[in-house]
Amino acid sequence: MTEIKLEKCKIALDAMGGDYAPKHEILGAVAAMKEDNNFDLLLVGDKEKILKVAREENINIDERIIYHASQIIEMVDKPVDAIKSKPNSSLVIGARLVKEKKAHAFVSAGNTGAMMAASTLIMGRIEGVGRPTIGASFPTTSGNKKCTVFDAGASVDSKPQHLFEYAVLGTIFAKEMYGVQSPAIGLLNVGEEESKGNELTFAAQKLLKDSKLNFHGNVEGRDILKGTVDVVVCDGFVGNIILKFGESVLNLLKTRIRNFADKGLINKIKALVVKSVLKASLSDMDYQTHGGVPLLGVNGISIIGHGSSSPLAIKNMILRAKEMYDKNLIKKFEEALKTYAVTK
Amino acid sequence: MTEIKLEKCKIALDAMGGDYAPKHEILGAVAAMKEDNNFDLLLVGDKEKILKVAREENINIDERIIYHASQIIEMVDKPVDAIKSKPNSSLVIGARLVKEKKAHAFVSAGNTGAMMAASTLIMGRIEGVGRPTIGASFPTTSGNKKCTVFDAGASVDSKPQHLFEYAVLGTIFAKEMYGVQSPAIGLLNVGEEESKGNELTFAAQKLLKDSKLNFHGNVEGRDILKGTVDVVVCDGFVGNIILKFGESVLNLLKTRIRNFADKGLINKIKALVVKSVLKASLSDMDYQTHGGVPLLGVNGISIIGHGSSSPLAIKNMILRAKEMYDKNLIKKFEEALKTYAVTK
Repeated sequence: MTEIKLEKCKIALDAMGGDYAPKHEILGAVAAMKEDNNFDLLLVGDKEKILKVAREENINIDERIIYHASQIIEMVDKPVDAIKSKPNSSLVIGARLVKEKKAHAFVSAGNTGAMMAASTLIMGRIEGVGRPTIGASFPTTSGNKKCTVFDAGASVDSKPQHLFEYAVLGTIFAKEMYGVQSPAIGLLNVGEEESKGNELTFAAQKLLKDSKLNFHGNVEGRDILKGTVDVVVCDGFVGNIILKFGESVLNLLKTRIRNFADKGLINKIKALVVKSVLKASLSDMDYQTHGGVPLLGVNGISIIGHGSSSPLAIKNMILRAKEMYDKNLIKKFEEALKTYAVTK
Repeated sequence: MTEIKLEKCKIALDAMGGDYAPKHEILGAVAAMKEDNNFDLLLVGDKEKILKVAREENINIDERIIYHASQIIEMVDKPVDAIKSKPNSSLVIGARLVKEKKAHAFVSAGNTGAMMAASTLIMGRIEGVGRPTIGASFPTTSGNKKCTVFDAGASVDSKPQHLFEYAVLGTIFAKEMYGVQSPAIGLLNVGEEESKGNELTFAAQKLLKDSKLNFHGNVEGRDILKGTVDVVVCDGFVGNIILKFGESVLNLLKTRIRNFADKGLINKIKALVVKSVLKASLSDMDYQTHGGVPLLGVNGISIIGHGSSSPLAIKNMILRAKEMYDKNLIKKFEEALKTYAVTK
């Protein structure tokens, strides 16, 4: 039987994005290719700097995969202004590669706001999406189950309709990426009762209840790590606070264990045991495992990483983008937005 | 020298509040009295039930300290309705004892919403307070420094003026309870930059900047456990989510360590080490240490506990109420609300 295969996945990587760019980006790309060589890499950034690091790291890069960017958007730059004033930045060029169908995905550890702006303004939104949304996946006490929170900070002051869209995109995301047959959706709230909530949740609750989505009802802050549902929807202000608060928990743990270790030799030995156990038990709480957060609702795959991304984080961001391509997520988002559209 | 001492502190305890009432309440009260006998206890609840548990636990209670309550507000009752329809409930009687100056403080592990409603409606608000607020104190990576978040869920859809009031009450709370000379106030936000935020934070930022408070500026979700500031102000919707999310982190840790321990004898031994170290290092993350959360802005001391409060938690709630009385917090709140009132 002759088989016509899917076009090979092309992933554009912002080589200038993170705090350790382009070194971590290049090392991360190499690591990703070792794990899965079935994609093409497009390196976007300062050609000289990329080649210099490649030489230092003894990596041979075919110059044709480098898309030179003469400008850099800094972490302090104002997102929308920067996108407009720096058309030759790696962030703008990377997003444009997706827009022009030269790449299927764009991955960056650069300025988060600018990456969101570039993805939204250049790639454009999928029909039916009012606002793109960031999904942050949390580990849960329910085995391997993940709970993904939308929106983890793409926008604030969301309207009820936006929360509904997050639920639709989240349903597809949880289904395809985590293999959940019919993902349960929870509306983040201050109590489980229908009578609890604020203006936004009361209105969103109605939209979700009236839809064909698998709406579980209200969930509380504790339900995220409990894994009560697969997808939690909330305003991006709240989601962003949770995401950053959650990341800081591991730091608190580390500090406390370090302080404990400082109190004598026996403590030091015990602390070593603790560290090894926690490393094994909490690896999925480490942001490096999933690498970055996807921005859903734009016309292309867009993955945003931490400024301090390690090569491991970059590798996982690339592999995640690849998985989203393989699973044809953009197409499925488009279909779902039509299927679940509010009819009432 | 003759000394005229402060009136002895009178603490009303809701004996019917928690899931294990009145047993945990009585045991907690006994424990508190062992630690500090310089307060009078008023036990509010079903007299027969209280005396029965006292007999079982071999505790001798002078019946005159029992304020009989023939009704009970259940966890599922609607707060405001319950306050009105159950005037002989322990929650209503306890709040009334404070209103009538028969007690200085009221402590309950009962229905949180009803406790807030009883405190607000019966005790009344301090002049200058639009909405009472709950403070939740978090441990930080900055040594013994605490970071207290207001509002942790007393109300939602806060107005900018409310956030400002939380900052005033929080300033006094951190100063008196944690001995911080000039508590730094942070406005919880999605970014540190002044340009970041939602409608609420932009307006609140202006009020805080124009005030005489020690306003640090915007802080992010990660700054709470980092201890960047002493007091974080936010809408109660966000604060409630953080509080409950934070509480669930320890559960995740416990589950993961248990799963690790289940994989063989060596793991089991290692897990024992981990548990002992974490117990020593993270004791202040356990809600039982501070017992409950204070509701500030009402005319009297009001402490709200977990439904599942242990005797240890009840003990610490009582001692916290006592400390707030000793430090004359209500008076200081009144003064501060006048001193810091927005003049512009």
